[in-house]
Amino acid sequence: MEYRKIRDEGDDKETGIEDVESLREKSVLLSGAVLDNRLASVGETKTDSHRAKAKWKLKSVVTLALTILTSSQAILIVWSKRAGKYEYSVTTANFLVETLKCAISLVALARIWKKEGVTEDNRLSTTLDEVIVYPIPAALYLVKNLLQYYIFAYVDAPGYQILKNLNIISTGVLYRIILKKRLSEIQWAAFILLTAGCTTAQLNSNSDRVLQTPFQGWVMAIVMALLSGFAGVYTEAIIKKRPSRNINVQNFWLYIFGMGFNAIAILVQDFDAVMNKGFLHGYSPITVLMIFNHALSGIAVSMVMKYADNIVKVYSTSVAMLLTAVVSVYLFGFHLSLAFFLGTTVVSVAIYLHSAGKMQR
Amino acid sequence: MEYRKIRDEGDDKETGIEDVESLREKSVLLSGAVLDNRLASVGETKTDSHRAKAKWKLKSVVTLALTILTSSQAILIVWSKRAGKYEYSVTTANFLVETLKCAISLVALARIWKKEGVTEDNRLSTTLDEVIVYPIPAALYLVKNLLQYYIFAYVDAPGYQILKNLNIISTGVLYRIILKKRLSEIQWAAFILLTAGCTTAQLNSNSDRVLQTPFQGWVMAIVMALLSGFAGVYTEAIIKKRPSRNINVQNFWLYIFGMGFNAIAILVQDFDAVMNKGFLHGYSPITVLMIFNHALSGIAVSMVMKYADNIVKVYSTSVAMLLTAVVSVYLFGFHLSLAFFLGTTVVSVAIYLHSAGKMQR
Repeated sequence: MEYRKIRDEGDDKETGIEDVESLREKSVLLSGAVLDNRLASVGETKTDSHRAKAKWKLKSVVTLALTILTSSQAILIVWSKRAGKYEYSVTTANFLVETLKCAISLVALARIWKKEGVTEDNRLSTTLDEVIVYPIPAALYLVKNLLQYYIFAYVDAPGYQILKNLNIISTGVLYRIILKKRLSEIQWAAFILLTAGCTTAQLNSNSDRVLQTPFQGWVMAIVMALLSGFAGVYTEAIIKKRPSRNINVQNFWLYIFGMGFNAIAILVQDFDAVMNKGFLHGYSPITVLMIFNHALSGIAVSMVMKYADNIVKVYSTSVAMLLTAVVSVYLFGFHLSLAFFLGTTVVSVAIYLHSAGKMQR
Repeated sequence: MEYRKIRDEGDDKETGIEDVESLREKSVLLSGAVLDNRLASVGETKTDSHRAKAKWKLKSVVTLALTILTSSQAILIVWSKRAGKYEYSVTTANFLVETLKCAISLVALARIWKKEGVTEDNRLSTTLDEVIVYPIPAALYLVKNLLQYYIFAYVDAPGYQILKNLNIISTGVLYRIILKKRLSEIQWAAFILLTAGCTTAQLNSNSDRVLQTPFQGWVMAIVMALLSGFAGVYTEAIIKKRPSRNINVQNFWLYIFGMGFNAIAILVQDFDAVMNKGFLHGYSPITVLMIFNHALSGIAVSMVMKYADNIVKVYSTSVAMLLTAVVSVYLFGFHLSLAFFLGTTVVSVAIYLHSAGKMQR
C-alpha cells in the first residue's frame, strides 16, 4: 500500500530523532569515552535540537495562521450577510479562490527558483504517477458539496451546523485507519471531548430538533462527514508522500485540479447567469476580501497538512469557531450563552489533554 | 495538624502495600534464595492481594449502593411531588431520617458485639477528644441550609440547580487543601470536565438566565459550595482519623448530633405546626419510603467516606443525577435533550480519565 509506505517513512524519521536523543544520553553517560567523540556527538545534537525547534516553530506559525484566517473567514461571512444577501455567484468566487491560490503558489515558486535554482524537488514538471492522485480530494469535496443541497430536505441549517461536528470524529477515525498513525487513549478521549465541546458551544433553544432528524438525514450527514474526513486525510497522504517535494509545487497541482472542478461547477450551475450578467456581477469589496481570505486559509490548510497533520487542523478550526463567537460579541453585539462557556471549557480541556496525551504515548 | 497526621497514615498504608508488592517481585527474581523464605513471602503476598481485592470490592459495593440510592432518592422526590405538594413538615422528616440512621447503626453494632465481643474499636463509649469534632459537619450543613432560603432572592430554582455544580469544584479544591491528598493533572482535568458535563446535562432553554445572577447571588452560591464541600471533606477527615474504629460507632456519633441539630430546626421552624397538627401529620407511604431511602443513602455516604473518599462520592452522585434522568424517561415520560447526551458523554470521559489518571500518577 502507498499509505503504509508514507507512514513508515514518517515513523522512521521520528524514530531517527529519538535514537539520536538516546545516543546523546548514552554518550554523556559513557565517562570513559574519548573527548573528541563526545564533542562531535554534542555538535550533532545541537543541530538536531535546532532542527526540531525550527520544525516546531513552523508548525506553530502555520497552525496560528490557519486559526486566525478561519475565524476571520467566518466573521467576513457574517459581515457580508449583514450587508445584504449574496449577489455574486458562489461558483465564480470559488473558481477565483482556486486561481488566486495557484497564482500565489507560482509567485512563491518563482522566488525559490531565483534563490535556490531549479531542483528535482521544486521543479513544476511532474510524472503521471505523482499527479494522478491530486484530483481525488477535489472530486470528494465536489460530491460532498452536491450532497449538501439534498441534506437540507431532512435537516434545517442550524441542525446541519451541529451535525457537521461529526467531521471531527470521522477525521480522527480515518486518520487512524488510512494514515495508520496512532493516537494515545488520552488523545482519543480528548477527541471525543472536542466533538462534544464544539457541539455544546453551538447549542441553542432549537438544537433539540436535530434529534428528530430522520434516518436518511443521519445517513447523509455521516456520508458527508466521511467524505470530508477522507478528503482531508487523503490530502495529507498526498502532501506527505514525498516530504522533500516543495509544498508550492504540491499546492499548484492540487489547486489546478480545484480550478478545473470549479470551472465545471460554473458551467453546470451558473452558466446562464454568468453569460447574461457577466462573470464578476455583484462583486463588492467585501467579496474580494473574502476571496483573498479563502485563498490564504486554503494555503494555510495545505501548510498544516505538510508540517503538522489533520488532527492539528481539526483543533485549529475548532478554536477558530470559538474565537469567531467571542469576536462577534464585540463586532455584532452577539450574546454568549452558558452552553458556549461550557463548550469552550470542554474544548480547552481537550486541547490540554491532547498535548498531555502525547507525552505519555 | 491533625489532618496532616491522617494523610500520613493513609500514605504509609499505601506505601506499605507497594513495598510488599515490590518485595514479592524481588523475591521471585532472587533465584538463589532459600525455598522456605520464598514460600513465606508468597504466602504473605497472597494475603495482601486478597486484602487489596476485598478492599476494592467493599469500595465498589458502597459506591454502587450510593449511586443507586441517590438516583432512586431523586426519583422518589419527583414521584412525591407529582402525587401532590409536600403536606408533611420537612424538619420532622429530617429528624426521623437521623433517628433511623442512629437505630440502624446501633442494630449493626449489637450484631458485631454478639459476634466479636466489645473491643476498644467497637465500644460505644468515647472520649471528649474523639467526639468534639463530630457536631461540626452537622453545624456546617445547618448554616448551608439556612443560606438556601436567602439565595432564592437572587436565583430561581433551576438556576440554583446549575449553581450547585460549584460543589464539585469546591469539594475537589478542599479535598486537596484539607486532606492534602493529591490528584494528578489528568484527574484535575477530569474534575473540571465532571463539573462542565453535569452542568451541560442540566441545560434547558432558561439556563442562560443564571448568567444574569447578581453579584450577591454568586457570592452566596460560592459560600454554600464551600460550606457543603468543607462539611464533606471534614466528615472524611473525622471518619479516616482512626481507621480501625468501627464505622457504626463513628456513624452513631455523627447521627446523634444530626438528631440534635434537626430537633433545634423543628423548634425554630415548625414548632406551632407540630403542636397543632401532630408530629406525623401529612405522612404518606411515599414519605416513609423517602425517609428509609434517605437514611440508607446517608449511611452509604459514610461508608464511601470510610472506604473510598469525597472524590468517589462526587463521581457517584453525578452518575446518579444522570441515571435519574434516564429512568425518568421511562417512569414519567421525560424527554432527553441533546445537551443531556453531550453532558453524559463528557461525564463518561471524565470518569475514564479519572481512573486513567490514577495509573499515571
